[in-house]
Amino acid sequence: MQLIIGNHNYSSWSLRAWLLLRQFDLGFDTLRIALFTPGSAKQIKSFNPAGKVPILLDNDLTIWDSLAIGEYINEQHLFGKGWPADARLRAHARSSCAEMHSGFMALRKAMPMNCRRHVDNFAISVEVQQDIDRINTLWSEALSRSGSEQFLYGNFSIADACYAPVVFRLTGYGVKQPAQLQAYCDRILALPACQEWLALAQQESEVIEEEEV
Amino acid sequence: MQLIIGNHNYSSWSLRAWLLLRQFDLGFDTLRIALFTPGSAKQIKSFNPAGKVPILLDNDLTIWDSLAIGEYINEQHLFGKGWPADARLRAHARSSCAEMHSGFMALRKAMPMNCRRHVDNFAISVEVQQDIDRINTLWSEALSRSGSEQFLYGNFSIADACYAPVVFRLTGYGVKQPAQLQAYCDRILALPACQEWLALAQQESEVIEEEEV
Ligand SMILES: N[C@@H](CCC(=O)N[C@@H](CS)C(=O)NCC(=O)O)C(=O)O
Ligand SMILES: N[C@@H](CCC(=O)N[C@@H](CS)C(=O)NCC(=O)O)C(=O)O
Repeated sequence: MQLIIGNHNYSSWSLRAWLLLRQFDLGFDTLRIALFTPGSAKQIKSFNPAGKVPILLDNDLTIWDSLAIGEYINEQHLFGKGWPADARLRAHARSSCAEMHSGFMALRKAMPMNCRRHVDNFAISVEVQQDIDRINTLWSEALSRSGSEQFLYGNFSIADACYAPVVFRLTGYGVKQPAQLQAYCDRILALPACQEWLALAQQESEVIEEEEV
Repeated sequence: MQLIIGNHNYSSWSLRAWLLLRQFDLGFDTLRIALFTPGSAKQIKSFNPAGKVPILLDNDLTIWDSLAIGEYINEQHLFGKGWPADARLRAHARSSCAEMHSGFMALRKAMPMNCRRHVDNFAISVEVQQDIDRINTLWSEALSRSGSEQFLYGNFSIADACYAPVVFRLTGYGVKQPAQLQAYCDRILALPACQEWLALAQQESEVIEEEEV
């Protein structure tokens, strides 16, 4: 398999797909395309006309969205292990991921993922705080329903990969979290795969001005 | 099952879930909550703290996002028939739906779903035209890969439900489509379930000012 991603530092959707593959120890090559550089849009479109990363190539198949990559990997490579085994938790996990996929615009806009950045007194607007509160409610509910002291729904799942960019954001922008949720964030950050991603981000030199809020 | 939806006239995400259930002839009750009216936000939150519709209640399970509802229904009620049977087409269909779920912001903002509205010379910006062009590429690719003369991937699937609000938008705002894609739009519009939804929209009297662009 080949996974086409953007900058490690900035590309939150790429991180989702990459972390899922890495965490489940699936073999794959990575092709990194530095976003918003000369020729990058054209190069992405040469793989898929949607023009966005991540894109997964598996034999002659092209899957061009992070959530669809999750479902595909779950089905074809993990034989269901990508989601919680319990149908009730699975429905919860899928709702959580689809909510992320379609929402949290205020958070995404005000606090773009930027792995290298560490801010201490970041000013949080009312709308962003609402998004953070909602995420905290969601995470608490997931952890309590699954009775997990590890990941959102017990074992590592697509949902943890999906919310990893939020963990990176909360950490980077110095947002204080309730203890139980901070512990969850710390567990995600401590994953060797996340440390690997962060190290790759440190090595990058490109700067995307509009993500440097 | 009970499906909680917003206004038929405006709520594009509600239409997706509703059409899927209706088209597959699954039994369900509908609870309509007129959006942005006094108490509506609170009422939606009494079902799920995300505060958005659609929400599906199935016994004691709550699924609170249209795409997650699609996956849940596919798994628990349609035994896989919600997606194309072919794994390759299924990966394509899921990518299409997830792309819709996370994108097409220009189109969604400039041309909000408004079933009652019919405009003749709607001015289309460059960004909106790009979204429309992308959708046309996607639909053409789906139809040609599946060899379908009916729905996007052969039989009616979650993908058709997902793109139905786009069909309603293109029609309502008078966007001319290439013949093959116009024929697809016409087939969607002709579905008795779509006609039923449009009739329900006609009967509504609430007006949401910001959707009346
Ligand atoms: N639906 C997509 C969203 C992907 C997306 O927006 N990717 C961004 C990078 S994080 C991108 O490719 N941007 C490049 C561009 O818009 O030109 C997914 O989840 O895969
Ligand atoms: N992720 C959601 C998006 C749902 C959504 O944004 N729904 C709108 C109506 S179409 C809503 O509930 N708006 C009410 C509000 O934001 O207060 C889904 O696809 O189900």
